[in-house]
Amino acid sequence: MPGEFALIERIRARAGRRDDVVLGIGDDAAVLALPPGHELVVSCDTLVAGVHFPDDTAPADIGHKALAVNLSDLAAMAATPAWCTLALTLPEANAAWLDDFLDGFLALADEHGVSLVGGDTTRGPLSMSITVHGLVPAGQALRRDGAREGDDIWVTGTLGDAAGGLAQWRARGPASAKLRHRLDRPTPRVQAGLALRGLATAGIDLSDGLAADLGHVLAASGVGARLELGRLPSSRTLADHFDEARRWTLQLTGGDDYELCFTAPAARAFEIEQAMAAIDLPVTVVGQVEAGAGLRFGTPDGDAWTPPADGYQHFSGGHA
Amino acid sequence: MPGEFALIERIRARAGRRDDVVLGIGDDAAVLALPPGHELVVSCDTLVAGVHFPDDTAPADIGHKALAVNLSDLAAMAATPAWCTLALTLPEANAAWLDDFLDGFLALADEHGVSLVGGDTTRGPLSMSITVHGLVPAGQALRRDGAREGDDIWVTGTLGDAAGGLAQWRARGPASAKLRHRLDRPTPRVQAGLALRGLATAGIDLSDGLAADLGHVLAASGVGARLELGRLPSSRTLADHFDEARRWTLQLTGGDDYELCFTAPAARAFEIEQAMAAIDLPVTVVGQVEAGAGLRFGTPDGDAWTPPADGYQHFSGGHA
Repeated sequence: MPGEFALIERIRARAGRRDDVVLGIGDDAAVLALPPGHELVVSCDTLVAGVHFPDDTAPADIGHKALAVNLSDLAAMAATPAWCTLALTLPEANAAWLDDFLDGFLALADEHGVSLVGGDTTRGPLSMSITVHGLVPAGQALRRDGAREGDDIWVTGTLGDAAGGLAQWRARGPASAKLRHRLDRPTPRVQAGLALRGLATAGIDLSDGLAADLGHVLAASGVGARLELGRLPSSRTLADHFDEARRWTLQLTGGDDYELCFTAPAARAFEIEQAMAAIDLPVTVVGQVEAGAGLRFGTPDGDAWTPPADGYQHFSGGHA
Repeated sequence: MPGEFALIERIRARAGRRDDVVLGIGDDAAVLALPPGHELVVSCDTLVAGVHFPDDTAPADIGHKALAVNLSDLAAMAATPAWCTLALTLPEANAAWLDDFLDGFLALADEHGVSLVGGDTTRGPLSMSITVHGLVPAGQALRRDGAREGDDIWVTGTLGDAAGGLAQWRARGPASAKLRHRLDRPTPRVQAGLALRGLATAGIDLSDGLAADLGHVLAASGVGARLELGRLPSSRTLADHFDEARRWTLQLTGGDDYELCFTAPAARAFEIEQAMAAIDLPVTVVGQVEAGAGLRFGTPDGDAWTPPADGYQHFSGGHA
C-alpha cells in the first residue's frame, strides 16, 4: 500500500495540463494565468460518503459526481470551466480505489477542458472537497439577483430522476437503474450556461430541489413566483415509478438533479429555445416571476397544493 | 439549532469583502477581479480532527490553524493572499462552535487582507478544506525547482516547537503551553515570502519537517544538500524540554512549524538578513546545496547521524 506522496504522484501523473497552467501539481501551490478582460469564478463543494452519495456508490461514479456538482455551479454562473483542486480524505491509502475514482473524475475534467492543478490527500472518513475555477468575460456572470417581475422561469432537462433514484435506494425495494444513474452521474449543464449569457436574467443550479433553489433566486432578486406543477418536466421513467403527487414532491424538494433553473423576459423565449436546441437540451417554461414575495404553486386542476415541509432544508446539500 | 442555510448566513454576515470581490458569498460561485499582469496562485489543504489537530483543540485555534497552513503555502510561493473558500464539515449544526471557529479564522484573514468568498457546510466528522488564492506579478512565484549547487539553505524562525508540543500532548505528561501554542497557532510567514521575491532561488513551507520538505526542493531542483544539525535554530523552550538528539528528530521529521525553508546564492546573504531584519524575523543558514542527490547531515562533533526512519512520511501531512 503506497503512502501519501505515492498517492499524490499517482494523481499528478494523470492530471491534464492546460496551456494557462504555469505551474501545476508538485509545488506549494499552482500558478495560473488568466486571459485579459476576464473575471475569475470560484466555487467549492464537499461530498461526504453516506451523506451526498450512498455508501455503495462506485468509486468512478463518486469521482464523476464530485466534479460534476462543482462544474454545475460554474454552469449556473455562465462561466467556462478552467481549473480545479481536489482535497481527498480517505480511510486508507488505497491505490486501486484512487485509480477508479480518478477514472470518473478525470474523464469529466477532460470533457470540459479542466486541469486538476492542486490536491491534498488526508486520512479520515471518506470525503472530498473540490474547488473549481472558471472564467467569464468581465461583467457577464449569470447571477441570482437579476430576476424581474414578468420573467419566465425555465428549467433544463427533466426534474426528479435523481431524487426518485435516492428514494428507491432508501426504500430498499425495486429500483430503476436509469434513476440511479441520474443520481450517480449528474450532467453539469455547462454548455447551457454559456449559451444563456446575455439571454437569462438570473440562474441557479438545482442541487436542493426546485423550490429551495428557485427560492434563493427569488429572495436575491426581491420577487416571488408562481410555478405550474403540471408543467414540471418529468422523464418517462420517473412517471413509470411514481404517481403525480409524489413526482411533484421529488421535483420540488428532492434535489440532486443539477439541471439549471433560470429566468428570462418572455421576449427572449424564441432565442432561448433556439440556443438550447442547438445543444440538444430540452428546456421548459415552468412558471412566471411575480411581484409578491414567496413561491406559489398552481395545479392542472386548479387545486391548492403545498409541498411537504420536511423536504425544504437539507443540512447536507446547500452551499454559499 | 439552526439549519445549514442559517450557518452559511452566519458565515456570510461576518466575511470581509475586498474591493476586487465582484460577487462574494451568496450566489452559486464567487466572482473575482484580478489586477493586470498578475498570475493566480492557488493551494488547498484539509485538516481532519484527530489527524491534523488534537481533538481537544479550541475551535478558535482550529479556525486559525486551518487558514494559517493554507496561507503558509502562499507564503512559500511569495504570493500576496487575496481570497479563500471554506468547506466545513461538522458533526452537527452548532452555531456556538462555528462562531468560535470563525473568531480564529476571520481574525487571521483580516490580518492578511483575505476575503472569504465562498463556503460549503456539510454534515459529517469534523474536518475543513480551505482553498486560498493569492496574486503574484507574472513570473515571480517562488518555486521549488530553482535551488542550485552552492546555494545557502535558510530557515525562518525556530524549528521543532510544534512537534515538541505534539509529542508532549501524545505522552500525556508535563506539557509546555508555549510549545502547544506553536502547534495550535502557527504563524504563516507571508511577509517573509514577499520579501524573498527576487532573492531566493527556491522555497517551501515546513509542514512535514525539514528533511521531507527540503527533500522536495532538492528533488524538484535535481540537487542534494548537507545540513548542519548544530545550526538548526531552536527555541529556548524546546531546549528546556528536549535533549539535543531528540530536538534534531523533532526539527527534521516533526512538521507543523510552518516556517519557510528557502535557498539563495551566498552573495545574497546580506540582503536576505536585511530583509528579514526589517520584518523582525530571525533567519538562519542551516546548510548548503550540493551537486550529489540526497540529504546528508553534519553534527557539531563530526559524527554520522541518521534521522529515525519512521518520521519521514506522514499520510496526513502532505499535499501537492
